[in-house]
Order: sequence, then C-alpha cells, then structure tokens
Amino acid sequence: MKQSALFSKTRKEAPKDEQSRNAELLIRAGFIHKDMAGVYSYLPLGLRVLTKIQQIIREELNAIGAVEVHLASLQEKTIWEKTGRWDDEVVDNWFKTKLKNNTELGLATTHEEPLTHLLKDHIRSFRDLPLLIYQFQTKFRNEQRAKSGILRGREFLMKDLYSFSKNEEEHAVLYDLMRRAYHNIFEKLGIGDRTYVTFASGGSFAKYSHEFQTLCDSGEDTIYISDEKGIAVNKEVLVDEVLKDLEIDPTTLREARAVETGNIFSLGTRFSEPLELVYKNEKDERVPVIMGSYGIGITRLMGTIAEVLSDEKGLVWPENIAPFQYHIIILKEPTGAVEEIGQLLYEKLKKENEVIYDDRDVQAGVKFADADLIGIPFRIVLGSRSLVDKTVEIIERKTGNSRVVKFEEIL
Amino acid sequence: MKQSALFSKTRKEAPKDEQSRNAELLIRAGFIHKDMAGVYSYLPLGLRVLTKIQQIIREELNAIGAVEVHLASLQEKTIWEKTGRWDDEVVDNWFKTKLKNNTELGLATTHEEPLTHLLKDHIRSFRDLPLLIYQFQTKFRNEQRAKSGILRGREFLMKDLYSFSKNEEEHAVLYDLMRRAYHNIFEKLGIGDRTYVTFASGGSFAKYSHEFQTLCDSGEDTIYISDEKGIAVNKEVLVDEVLKDLEIDPTTLREARAVETGNIFSLGTRFSEPLELVYKNEKDERVPVIMGSYGIGITRLMGTIAEVLSDEKGLVWPENIAPFQYHIIILKEPTGAVEEIGQLLYEKLKKENEVIYDDRDVQAGVKFADADLIGIPFRIVLGSRSLVDKTVEIIERKTGNSRVVKFEEIL
Repeated sequence: MKQSALFSKTRKEAPKDEQSRNAELLIRAGFIHKDMAGVYSYLPLGLRVLTKIQQIIREELNAIGAVEVHLASLQEKTIWEKTGRWDDEVVDNWFKTKLKNNTELGLATTHEEPLTHLLKDHIRSFRDLPLLIYQFQTKFRNEQRAKSGILRGREFLMKDLYSFSKNEEEHAVLYDLMRRAYHNIFEKLGIGDRTYVTFASGGSFAKYSHEFQTLCDSGEDTIYISDEKGIAVNKEVLVDEVLKDLEIDPTTLREARAVETGNIFSLGTRFSEPLELVYKNEKDERVPVIMGSYGIGITRLMGTIAEVLSDEKGLVWPENIAPFQYHIIILKEPTGAVEEIGQLLYEKLKKENEVIYDDRDVQAGVKFADADLIGIPFRIVLGSRSLVDKTVEIIERKTGNSRVVKFEEIL
Repeated sequence: MKQSALFSKTRKEAPKDEQSRNAELLIRAGFIHKDMAGVYSYLPLGLRVLTKIQQIIREELNAIGAVEVHLASLQEKTIWEKTGRWDDEVVDNWFKTKLKNNTELGLATTHEEPLTHLLKDHIRSFRDLPLLIYQFQTKFRNEQRAKSGILRGREFLMKDLYSFSKNEEEHAVLYDLMRRAYHNIFEKLGIGDRTYVTFASGGSFAKYSHEFQTLCDSGEDTIYISDEKGIAVNKEVLVDEVLKDLEIDPTTLREARAVETGNIFSLGTRFSEPLELVYKNEKDERVPVIMGSYGIGITRLMGTIAEVLSDEKGLVWPENIAPFQYHIIILKEPTGAVEEIGQLLYEKLKKENEVIYDDRDVQAGVKFADADLIGIPFRIVLGSRSLVDKTVEIIERKTGNSRVVKFEEIL
C-alpha cells in the first residue's frame, strides 16, 4: 500500500485527556482514534493488526477442532435472570437500553448465558459432546473509569471460547488442550517470553483458574513469578497453602506488574444447571453439561503489545502481527531515478509481501520519524547511493541493525 | 469439516413466532439462531456465508483503492447534535444507553457523523483527497416491528462506505466507480441477474440516489422495471418527469417487489458543513468536503439470497458464498468399505476445496433431506455401487442434475 492512500496522519501529541501509553502511541501513529474515554475506533493500520491477531488465534483454535460463531450483542433479560446476572447490583457494568415498547435489553458483557441457552436446540445426547465454540465479538462494559486506553475499554473486541463436556474428565482434557493452544498463541504473537501462566482463584468449580499475564508496568495486576517453575501466582491467591500445593519456594518469587491478556477457567454447571443445558448419557439419564470459559482480549492484547514492545521512538511490532512487513522509504534526488527504482522495488516486493511505500512528498527526516513511530519490522531505504552501488539499506526496527544489500539479493 | 463437528442440528419447524421465510429456512438449516425479534446469532454455517460475502465485497472495494476501518458502536451525543440527528423525534430508531455518570450514549445506527468527525484529524489539504473509507460493522436500529427475519434486524451487519471528495466532479467519478463496484459485487454474489439499479429520491444534494433492488416477493419496496433499459424506478419517484428524464416509456414498465440490498447516494456537504470537515485547496482556501454514502446490508443480503434462491426442499447457495462447495454423503453398508473410501475422498478433496463430510450415524434419507435443506452446491454420494464401479454420483443442488463419475476423475 502507498502511504498516501493510508489516510491516517501521524501526530506529535496525543489528545490531552489520553493518559495511557498504549493509546497515546497508537493515536500518535495513526492506528486508532479516541471517540471517548474507553471507546476507540480502529484506523487501517490498527485494523490490520487486529485482523492478524484474530487470524493467529483462529488458526490455533480451528486446529484443535473449535468452531466459530457470532452471537448477538442485544440481550433479553429472561435468560440472564435465570443465572442471577441481570441485576445491576450483581453485575455492575451493564449497559442497558430499551425497545420501543419499553422492554429492557442489555448489551452483552460476555456470552455464557446466550450460548448456553442457544445450545439447548442443538445438544441432545452424549454423541453431541464435547464441543469448543468461539467467537470474536465486541463486548460492552460500563466501566466506572476508563483510563487505560485499549487495555480496558467500555467497548472492546474479545475472543471468547466456551467448552462443553460430558463430565469432569473430558473437561480436564479440553482445559489442558486450551492451555496449550494459548501457549502457542502467545508465542506466535511475539510475547510468549513475557507471558506467564498465573494461578488465580478458581471460584466454586475448580481449585484454580489460569490467567495469562503479560508483564507490563501499567498492568492492573500484581503477580509473583517463580522463574524456576516458569509460572506465576496472582496476588489474590498468594498464601502458603497455594505455594505448597504448587511446590514453590516463597523466597524465590519475584513481584511484577502484569496485564491479564488471557484467562481460562472451569465453570462446572454454573450456567448449564439454571439454563437447563443437559444431555442424555448412555443410560438415557439427563445430565447437566460441564462448561469452561476461555477469553483473550483482542484489543487489550494489541494495546499490551504496543506498550511493552515500544521504545522511545515509537511502536515496534512483532513480525507476525505488524500491519506490514516492509516499509520502503525513498530519499528523493533531482533526477527522479531513485523514485523510479523505489517504485519498481515496491511493485516487485508487494507481490509476495506486505509492503508500505512512503510516496509522500515530505522531508526524509519526517519519513524516518514516522517510520519509527509506526514500527514496521523492516525498513528499506533507497537514496542516491542506491544508484551508484545498486544497493539498498535494510534496517531492523527492533534492533536498529542495518545492512546494505544488493538489488538482486532483495528481489 | 465433518458434519458431526458442526454442532448445529437441522429441525423440521422454525420457532412459532418466526414469520419470515428467510429466517425460517436459515433456522431450520442451522445457519442462524433467533435471540429475539430482529436479533439473530450466526452459527458456523451462517458465519461462513457472512464471511464469504464480506470477502467478495472487500476485494472489490480494495481493488478501487478503498481502505477499511472499524468504527465504534457507542456514540456521544455532541457530534450528532451538530447534524441534528441526536433527537429521537428526528431519528426514531436510536437505541440509547447511559454511562455510570448518567451521560447519555447512543448505539450507532449509521456512521456518517463519527467518521466525518474523525477525519478532521487527518484531512488537511487537497493532497489528502479523494478518499474511500469503509467498514463491516454491526448497526443497531430500534425498529418498531421486526418481522422480516434478517432482512430488517434490530442488530445487523452492514458494509458502509463513505467517499470524501474535493468537489462535485471528483465526487461524480467516485460515485460512478462505486456503482460499477456494486455491479461486480452483485454479479459475484450470484444475484446480478435479479438485482436492478433503481432510481430513487436523491434528497437535498442530488437528483437521484441509486438503490440496488433485488427481486424478492417478501421485499418491502415496490419498483418499476424497464427491461429495455435494464434499470428500475422506485415507486416513490414514479412520476412523468422522472420517466422522461430517464427516457423510459411508462407502458413498458413492470411492477415488482424487491429488497433494497444496496444503496449509494450523494451527501454533498450535509455532514461536512455542520461537523466542519474542510480541506485547504490550492489557493489556501478552506472548502467543505463533498461526501457520498454507500451501503450494503450484509445480513440482509444473506437473507435475501436465502429467500430468493431457495426451493421447496431448502436453501440453494450460489457457489461463491456457499459455506462449503461439496457435501460428501456415504450410504453405509455392512463391510465399512464405502465409508473407508468416503473418508479417503474427503481427505483428498478437502486439501483444495471446502468440503463437509456427513459422518453422522443416521439413515440415508435423513442425510439427503438435511443436505437439501442446507443447500451445498454439489453433493457427492458414495454407495455400494461405488465399490463395484469405482464411481461416485455428483448431484448439483440447484438443478438436481446428477452424473456418475469415476474415482480418478474426481480426484
């Protein structure tokens, strides 16, 4: 894509009311737009990152047999009343609205209830289980405060997956399968080395839940990392009993701030019982389905990566989710010959790569500063030297390492 | 995909409160789930169709230089007040909600206002124009009645594109470009032959707007088709002056019911003036941007196609948007040899095609009826004859034509 076709402009300053580093950087680089506190729109560069994150996750989930759906945002109160989660006293972040006839509706904060209810039409016998069902869908949460950019939005994109099993043994297998899928996902997203499986409170149906906590100074969570075990413990369950259970020596733990980018937990029959999602087992008995829930905040993940992998010059995208792989920059000279070569290189390279070509009529310094801010992994620079040597300079955004490469080599 | 992994079940009857043929068929075939009147969730088969429709549209729009974004659903009233569209007396289908501090918010019914406002950060000079910006995004419209299935939802998926031009001449070029892109899109979707460019009221800024009306008995619109010209006129502008203008002989017109699956119209400065979206021209003067708006209802389109291309047995998907291309059905026999070949065929075929393999342990009659209802373009049937002849039968869903093909040929 030519940079001139990308309508977004970089800017020196983020809006004054923006306090978070992730949104500040993403706004300045033209990836997102702030509509109001906690509500952001995604511009072409930002949408490309979101789409890539989704595709990586989709491939991992499809590989383990999960199927994708798209559930509604507008929610009727009846099914939420059955699980006791309609009341604003119980769930304090509902956005509610009304039909013309004054029927109250809610905007989905999550989708356990509607999916459990929906499956009553489709799950009948033990032959229909197990199931892994997921979606990428906007969630609406009426947060009291929204100061963390896209780390905690009032409207945000989430991947939520729900597992449906015949019994606890089958659930344990799926839970473990998901845990491994999440490992793969965080590795592919380029933050595997700073993301810890973190033991957290399990609620009524399991000893623990498992959070995927990504180290980040502006994170809301405090975790305690055991480097020896390669896991962490959330502050909320940091008690002797838990450490003993996990065979962790308390003196080896180190405290860190982190963002909960993913979580997996067992729901037992919390939803299937009140919503009557049952199946008939081999003995023709009606048995409630055992459920699990597995979330990854897609926009939160993008914000976390923006924050933790950036430097003082701007964003630094991992190759797998960068909006483009190569950023071609031309240092113009009077003859126009460099521009001609640049154009040729762009046409050739874009056939098999994602390339952005800075065709704007601005000074080289502006182009370099913008490229640093936008954070494409590899920058290819052509100047008058390119004419003489028939070379280009390739600079890696992450390390700043550069090398001079012959035209033939790059093509 | 194996049919057993697809959790949706077909059913003989749609919910009693479902009155529309499109939703009735799509629910029975397991493509969608009805959450409430006008609100539907998309199951794996339905989501596959939606995704394909989107991809066809995306490719056509990208080919003419449009860029994709994703705008927020939650809307602050300030920018809508500037255009006079916040008031419920003016726009009667808002869903409104509130932040914790009682600030009123709206759920986007459309996105002219937020995109126009957003672009103030990015459009500065004549060099930044023209632009074509689009998204696929959920719209929320508080319809008084919602009896048309996914033809008119309270929550629905729309492709909305907005054009931004320097002047009327440039706008006319983009408008025409979009009109041609829409032609291509409807052709590729398999309903080109029954979709008419229909002249409709242009509002304040143009003589006409152009609707893309797809013939459908349950459509809400009445149009008058000129077969000679290959265009139609909406009932709302069926007056002598218009017919004269379009050089249509009134006696040649035929009346038809249709669904407005797409529309394109000129907005002039209706939004850019109140929202102050201006650019600096070559003379350094501040000039309001000329806008256009171009919609396609994605879920409505799916519903229309479901309705108009179905027959008494069920859905009949055009190849380009069918959830799968091939439906393999095995007529089981005691030796299990046919099943073995079926499995082999499935493994081979799915490498380069989208295949659904009915591996369920049900009677052949059930499999055939379900396959008819689901409407995959080509059914491949293997029975005991396959063992003897080394052949399979291929049946085209649309025509019912079948032919017997040697194994080698199909592989």
